[in-house]
Amino acid sequence: MSIRIGIVGYGNLAKGAEAAVKENIDTELVAVFTRRDVSSVKINTENVPVVHVDNILDYKDKIDVLVICGGSATDLPVQTPMYAEHFNVVDSFDTHAKIPEHFDKVDASSKKGGKISVISVGWDPGMFSLNRLYGNAVLPNGKDYTFWGKGVSQGHSDAIRRVDGVKDAKQYTIPVESALERVRNGENPELTTREKHIRECFVVANEGADKARIEKEIKEMPNYFADYDTIVHFITEEELKANHSGIPHGGFVIRTGSTNDGKNKHVIEYSLKLDSNPEFTASVLVAYARAAYRMNKEGMTGCKTVFDIAPAYLSALDGATLRKNLL
Amino acid sequence: MSIRIGIVGYGNLAKGAEAAVKENIDTELVAVFTRRDVSSVKINTENVPVVHVDNILDYKDKIDVLVICGGSATDLPVQTPMYAEHFNVVDSFDTHAKIPEHFDKVDASSKKGGKISVISVGWDPGMFSLNRLYGNAVLPNGKDYTFWGKGVSQGHSDAIRRVDGVKDAKQYTIPVESALERVRNGENPELTTREKHIRECFVVANEGADKARIEKEIKEMPNYFADYDTIVHFITEEELKANHSGIPHGGFVIRTGSTNDGKNKHVIEYSLKLDSNPEFTASVLVAYARAAYRMNKEGMTGCKTVFDIAPAYLSALDGATLRKNLL
Repeated sequence: MSIRIGIVGYGNLAKGAEAAVKENIDTELVAVFTRRDVSSVKINTENVPVVHVDNILDYKDKIDVLVICGGSATDLPVQTPMYAEHFNVVDSFDTHAKIPEHFDKVDASSKKGGKISVISVGWDPGMFSLNRLYGNAVLPNGKDYTFWGKGVSQGHSDAIRRVDGVKDAKQYTIPVESALERVRNGENPELTTREKHIRECFVVANEGADKARIEKEIKEMPNYFADYDTIVHFITEEELKANHSGIPHGGFVIRTGSTNDGKNKHVIEYSLKLDSNPEFTASVLVAYARAAYRMNKEGMTGCKTVFDIAPAYLSALDGATLRKNLL
Repeated sequence: MSIRIGIVGYGNLAKGAEAAVKENIDTELVAVFTRRDVSSVKINTENVPVVHVDNILDYKDKIDVLVICGGSATDLPVQTPMYAEHFNVVDSFDTHAKIPEHFDKVDASSKKGGKISVISVGWDPGMFSLNRLYGNAVLPNGKDYTFWGKGVSQGHSDAIRRVDGVKDAKQYTIPVESALERVRNGENPELTTREKHIRECFVVANEGADKARIEKEIKEMPNYFADYDTIVHFITEEELKANHSGIPHGGFVIRTGSTNDGKNKHVIEYSLKLDSNPEFTASVLVAYARAAYRMNKEGMTGCKTVFDIAPAYLSALDGATLRKNLL
């Protein structure tokens, strides 16, 4: 019997989750829930209904896990605690400073309903967090490094679009290769923001706009660009569409450390190179949806993160097969 | 209160475990157990007794977890099931084909005694296995690659030493860089044994020995070298001691896959670069000893592998701190 999945939302992440449900042999999509007019939402799976979120409780017994694909700023802080009482849920909440608060709220809802929730699932937080934890556990005497990219930052692209005279823009976060090398060599460098990442911007300016002024405004923008070496390219709308319409991302988690009182050094490196950030994130969400379903079936309830979930729960294979083929 | 650790054996792995216990703030060494004459074993920790294994049961209530540092060929198949009835135990059993049998025996013992055992802990099996499982779970449509090295293979070094006329030898397993690159590029190559790894041998020949014959015998040795491109260097005993006395190792686990029906490609790469194979392996063992202790305190029993253990159990930090600092 398949694990019955519901998806809340139908943006890039939700479409990724829809695709991921198809890639997994033991999951099936039951419904997509939207706040929009349901007739306006056409999904990529045949014979699966689009349902207004107001009617989501009608699906309480028809869905094993709800994959909530809202944004962290305003959607998830409301949606996840709300749905966690009635469904096993998985979300990708990534506002780091607010995770403790989100965790507590969702935990209370899940426990009230006897359900499981898994928050902050994806690759960072998510797979990167796992690698930070494993790295710290096996090399307690060491140092953590996380680099992001090369990849598109939606937040930074949006910030550029708000500059007067900018029609459209895409921003890539790029790790500084020489900094990566210093870390890999075990130098344990203290790296500033500027030393870790470059920001490369592809900008479409409005006709007649003052490009020098736009470039200056971008480069001096506090929080977003002022602390970085920023490269600005002006390109045409056609070039932006042709060469920068993907949503790639990735990055590196490196733990360097030593054993035997500093006598021997070790480097643990985990990296991702992703053609599609939302599709990969959604694939992680669906794997954790499987875990949520199975853990809840075993009687577990409450809010979990990737730290609390034994890896075997993520796999469709049983323990004996995993030990035989992957151990 | 510290987690009280006992170590069985006092070879390289056990010495690594002894060092790892010191690196962890919440573990303390209670005793080292040996089959040798106890007066002949001098350990690196002051005020900790060396005890003959015949008296190990005297420590039943004085030890929280036993780290069993025997070899997989003959020690662990006997020791782990034997001690698992009386202690929480961790071992690094790595004879892949025999893991199911070992698991069943150890599981029965642990359950009989109400204890937890964790088998096949280290980096492969161990951290590499975890990465294979996570990679398969989040990218179900994909392909696995494991490369080992650059590092010393004790088995291959021993095989060379058995060749007539060889006084001493060290063998390095080296991944073929071009094969790694093809994998990283997402080419999904089918790689033969020869295409994945090179074997580089540093050999000290006895005086007057026929080096050409030794080289031929090494290169043609079935199972060990015949299927590989093998490089043989003859060096002096002094050179071997000066340049090849370390026990480095490492390797790469790569999962390449796609999402959305093949539309987008992704590469997940995990790698280790270790100055000391036994010290790193032992560090992983001690982290899993912590997990064994905590899981057993919560009432869990039976045999586990790295697949069955939620990552949070490996860390000395509590859940809230982990979510705040590492998620």
